[in-house]
Amino acid sequence: MREIDIQTAAKRLLAADDVLILCHRRPDGDAIGSGMSLYYALKSIGKRSRVECADPFPAKFDYLYKDENFDYDFEPKFIVAVDTATARLLGELMPVYGDKVDLSIDHHKSNTLFAKETLLDLPSPATAELMFLLLQEMGIEVDVNMANSMFTGIVTDTGGLRYASVTSRTYKVSSRLIDCGAQHALINRRIFESNSKERLKVKGLVLDSLEYYFDDQCALIYLPNNLAETYGVLEEELDGLSSIPRTIEGVGVGITIRDLGSERYRISLRSQDPYDSSKICQCFGGGGHVSAAGCTLEGSLEDVKERLLKATKRELEREDPCEMA
Amino acid sequence: MREIDIQTAAKRLLAADDVLILCHRRPDGDAIGSGMSLYYALKSIGKRSRVECADPFPAKFDYLYKDENFDYDFEPKFIVAVDTATARLLGELMPVYGDKVDLSIDHHKSNTLFAKETLLDLPSPATAELMFLLLQEMGIEVDVNMANSMFTGIVTDTGGLRYASVTSRTYKVSSRLIDCGAQHALINRRIFESNSKERLKVKGLVLDSLEYYFDDQCALIYLPNNLAETYGVLEEELDGLSSIPRTIEGVGVGITIRDLGSERYRISLRSQDPYDSSKICQCFGGGGHVSAAGCTLEGSLEDVKERLLKATKRELEREDPCEMA
Repeated sequence: MREIDIQTAAKRLLAADDVLILCHRRPDGDAIGSGMSLYYALKSIGKRSRVECADPFPAKFDYLYKDENFDYDFEPKFIVAVDTATARLLGELMPVYGDKVDLSIDHHKSNTLFAKETLLDLPSPATAELMFLLLQEMGIEVDVNMANSMFTGIVTDTGGLRYASVTSRTYKVSSRLIDCGAQHALINRRIFESNSKERLKVKGLVLDSLEYYFDDQCALIYLPNNLAETYGVLEEELDGLSSIPRTIEGVGVGITIRDLGSERYRISLRSQDPYDSSKICQCFGGGGHVSAAGCTLEGSLEDVKERLLKATKRELEREDPCEMA
Repeated sequence: MREIDIQTAAKRLLAADDVLILCHRRPDGDAIGSGMSLYYALKSIGKRSRVECADPFPAKFDYLYKDENFDYDFEPKFIVAVDTATARLLGELMPVYGDKVDLSIDHHKSNTLFAKETLLDLPSPATAELMFLLLQEMGIEVDVNMANSMFTGIVTDTGGLRYASVTSRTYKVSSRLIDCGAQHALINRRIFESNSKERLKVKGLVLDSLEYYFDDQCALIYLPNNLAETYGVLEEELDGLSSIPRTIEGVGVGITIRDLGSERYRISLRSQDPYDSSKICQCFGGGGHVSAAGCTLEGSLEDVKERLLKATKRELEREDPCEMA
């Protein structure tokens, strides 16, 4: 329940054995990249380790894990959570490991310090950037697997080093990772430049569905429940669509409503400076970063939209979005 | 007509006065960024200089030049061309300056060494990267204007550091530029994340128009002549659309046919490794890079398409695309 510095964290890992590495549910590139880089690092110094996650790793990141067969036979003696702000984000693994995490390695300011010890670095726009500093501290020789893992984490959590959270250190670390063999162009193409015929069709439909509010300061897209099945695209392929509304000139807050069926909706918010997506999502029990956050809402579509738009309007007016939300 | 090293180029610039800097016609971010960074650098050490180009600078780069009033009163004593592979690319300025260029600073392997002396650095994915090394060599203290200019050049010529041409040095230089004040997030957003309502509408239309050839190894989009006017978008806003076909899984060569009216078409090719866009475009008197190239064709749309597809098919089969094209 206390924060530790990077030297202490390095010492803990170097002293640990039979390490279980946990990623948050619905794992993204930073969760997988941070977890896998730590796994490869521990393996490189002869330690037994495996990565677990409540949800399967998306296929688009398979270059990071497909050649690895994790050893499920050992009883963990040291448990690390990466990129995971709360125990709840462990998903189905929370009841098993939620109160047993020895070390949390994270960059979210919303981290609840749920682990026994936490290495938290807010200036890192991705946990993978912090992971690079940590592996340096541990004296690990970064190989191509670790480099690919961390590069993946950095680019996925920064939109390809484009977000305001990126610093010169992020570019410097990326440069070092490329020197260590990171296949940067391949990874970037895989993550950002890969469309299926079907996905482009869906994108066209989404563009047709754009709605504008509050003098075009807010743009909203709605993804129907059956979109993925109807057009034969993967659920995970729809994720990138959430960034579209924010890219429109003059739009301060972009909203994506993803219909999960049974009157449940996953909401993704993206905002431009000075607007705060996480403040809006916190009104509804969600969270995230200033420029990208999420929450889940229930009710009729009309009602959900109205609540979201009301909170968004207040944020656009620089009032407390949660008041009356 | 000879190549020189970076030390000699630095010496020439430090000895020069009343410097005219030329950018290639239809200037992109690298031409403008390289030109403006050299301008700001020369200004910072008390030298008179101005930037000229056959075509106006696109408004989206106005943050690099809008606060500058170039001095048009002086007779140039030293002429520099940046990012310009041939004298012909000076456009309307070619008759005036084409055979008078003292120093060419460039990264294109197609550079014809048309200038008296040429500083050519093929490993630089953008002339702006080379420019940073050159300003270092000159002992220039890079300020925010120079940093913004060079950062703009680098990101526009590398698709935001995503192309295979990028090296660890590109990330390192970018890191240094951010340390010098480059407003990286702002620039990235301006260049990559800026859509107008109208542009997104056009994008939707373009997605609907996708055609596939050769077992989906080639995808083609056609932009009608009146597209910009009809939807109230700027010509320059259509440029980014050319990258769409290449992003489709399995597509080796993506073709964009832009109708210029009067049976003339501007062709943009984008390809994935191992296919070579410039080889295809060279068959039609065009050129560019391996992964992105262009040419202009005349004739009926049907005829132009057929010629392009024939050359593309041969490149996809790893035959000489120009044979019979």
